Amino acid sequence: MEPDQRPLAVQVIDQRKLPFAFALLTLDSVAAVADAIRQMVVRGAGCIGATAAYGMVLAAREAEGSWSQLQRLGKTLTETRPTAVNLAWAVTRMEQVLLQVPPADWVERAQLEAEAIATEDLAACAAIGRHGLKMIQALRLKQDRSAAAVTNILTHCNAGWLAFVDLGSATAPIYAAHNAGIPIHVWVDETRPRNQGARLTAWELAQHGVPHTVIADNAGGHLMQHGLVDLVLTGADRVTRQGDVANKIGTYLKALAAVDNGVPFYVALPSSTFDWKLRDGLQEIPIEQRDPREVTHLLGVAPPLNNGQELEFQILASSSTAANPAFDVTPARLITGLITERGISPASEAGILACFPEMA
Amino acid sequence: MEPDQRPLAVQVIDQRKLPFAFALLTLDSVAAVADAIRQMVVRGAGCIGATAAYGMVLAAREAEGSWSQLQRLGKTLTETRPTAVNLAWAVTRMEQVLLQVPPADWVERAQLEAEAIATEDLAACAAIGRHGLKMIQALRLKQDRSAAAVTNILTHCNAGWLAFVDLGSATAPIYAAHNAGIPIHVWVDETRPRNQGARLTAWELAQHGVPHTVIADNAGGHLMQHGLVDLVLTGADRVTRQGDVANKIGTYLKALAAVDNGVPFYVALPSSTFDWKLRDGLQEIPIEQRDPREVTHLLGVAPPLNNGQELEFQILASSSTAANPAFDVTPARLITGLITERGISPASEAGILACFPEMA
Repeated sequence: MEPDQRPLAVQVIDQRKLPFAFALLTLDSVAAVADAIRQMVVRGAGCIGATAAYGMVLAAREAEGSWSQLQRLGKTLTETRPTAVNLAWAVTRMEQVLLQVPPADWVERAQLEAEAIATEDLAACAAIGRHGLKMIQALRLKQDRSAAAVTNILTHCNAGWLAFVDLGSATAPIYAAHNAGIPIHVWVDETRPRNQGARLTAWELAQHGVPHTVIADNAGGHLMQHGLVDLVLTGADRVTRQGDVANKIGTYLKALAAVDNGVPFYVALPSSTFDWKLRDGLQEIPIEQRDPREVTHLLGVAPPLNNGQELEFQILASSSTAANPAFDVTPARLITGLITERGISPASEAGILACFPEMA
Repeated sequence: MEPDQRPLAVQVIDQRKLPFAFALLTLDSVAAVADAIRQMVVRGAGCIGATAAYGMVLAAREAEGSWSQLQRLGKTLTETRPTAVNLAWAVTRMEQVLLQVPPADWVERAQLEAEAIATEDLAACAAIGRHGLKMIQALRLKQDRSAAAVTNILTHCNAGWLAFVDLGSATAPIYAAHNAGIPIHVWVDETRPRNQGARLTAWELAQHGVPHTVIADNAGGHLMQHGLVDLVLTGADRVTRQGDVANKIGTYLKALAAVDNGVPFYVALPSSTFDWKLRDGLQEIPIEQRDPREVTHLLGVAPPLNNGQELEFQILASSSTAANPAFDVTPARLITGLITERGISPASEAGILACFPEMA
């Protein structure tokens, strides 16, 4: 058997095209995988991690037995995006297992490990769903809600199944509660500039039949002031060991509003999103600066133009420029709890280590 | 002389068309003025007030001497938009002066009063500019800045000259500082859903040569966390006597971030924006709910389509719906100061009444 002769490829959903088209893309080289991550064909912490893991299967073939070449290919993947730590985590984990087997076994071993990463991601999201469901049930009890009363959950960006292998992190408790018959309504932050909330989360929730309403990112504070949000639930791209959370730009503003209005603010993440080396998220987590074109231009449809297919529109006059920081850091002090596959912990080093004692 | 036979009309800039086209619109009836306010052809507290005042000149003619008809026309104007108090203030002021003259003099008297309102609006903005300039100079002294150091000001929505008769409220200190040679850079919140920041404020600043960068509404908190904002300066649509501020949706989130990061947060307003009858803004100021289409659709250009003219495109899949609250209320406790034509006062009843003792 010649493992490196088999046609290897990773098939992904082209998330840039949703919700106006559903398209799969086949990535058959490390360069193609790197490009897909960079261009946000795939995005979301878990999805990036799993895609990078499968990218390392391709790297195992392309390296042709050269360890330095394998590392170079791993670096190509890691350097595509700086903030979500799942990317570096997955590449490092893949390298570590490959280091232990002879080059002839790299591809086969890489496939096993990539599958393990994907399976663990799914299992983690399922566990997050179970823990989050209990939290929602407890919140409803505390609020003394009737069975028919709707629990309003606000979410930012997309931490849904598109962002993971399945289920999602922030959405796992939402799907679990909805499936358990709890009346849920989700306020979906549009999430400028790339509108992952409006484009991806809203689409996911619509597919699953979960009642939801899309809002401008500006609206969440007002809704909280008027008692229209019971809970904020977001994902994360990197979480430090003291519980500071890097997540899509704008998350910090929602956490401030949640605290100001006594609304619980939870962050859901598989433990692969922890960066155990870091403490102070604000000082230490690198924040990706993306192309200003994501602010100055937007995708949409204007039937019958372009046969109803998506087009790119310019929404800012050329006489002005834009800046585009892609993430912000929410300090642990603003966070009610972190929901991981191990349970719910306070956003503090002691709280996190109580769930992950092996990281002490 | 037959005053009601003269061709009366109000000419306004169609703000919906900026920045991709500059067009004037002539409004020659109360119905046309009401429609222009409702459709946001004109918007912004001072501009709505002045336009409504000129609308009352048309009402003075259309009423044909009937006081009840004049009141009905005034009500038509007042009811176009609920949040900005300048609208009701201007209509009430016009009615009060017309009540004191015989119907034959209505049109002439109305013209004088509308001109007075416009002149006062301009004078108020000019005074706000002078007071704001002193505040910026004092802030720079306190920060011990070199003459070359740039002062970064974040603003939300458009409280520029488009929103007033001229100069603007929030922009008046910016223009004054820029004209005085102080290095200013403005972070312009895009201001979803209607993007008045990206479309109007950025255009205004570009016309005047003021350095500026447009950002997604989500980005301001992150910039403040990293010391990139020295001052937040916004306008207002209605301010209560205790200093609670209704302004474009999202203002509250920026105020929270300013307080969390020790950044001064000032609100600039002519005194016509005070609603002296109200105290608790959160409970008492009516918040306009606008068409969800402003969230689900957006205007932009996609040359060469439509000859480079603006198009409306859909950015949310039809399987989801949206909500669109247009304003929020920033509680006085978050506000560093209110800049009015009388000077800068703390956002408190005592502070405001010290500047406006006649309202005690």
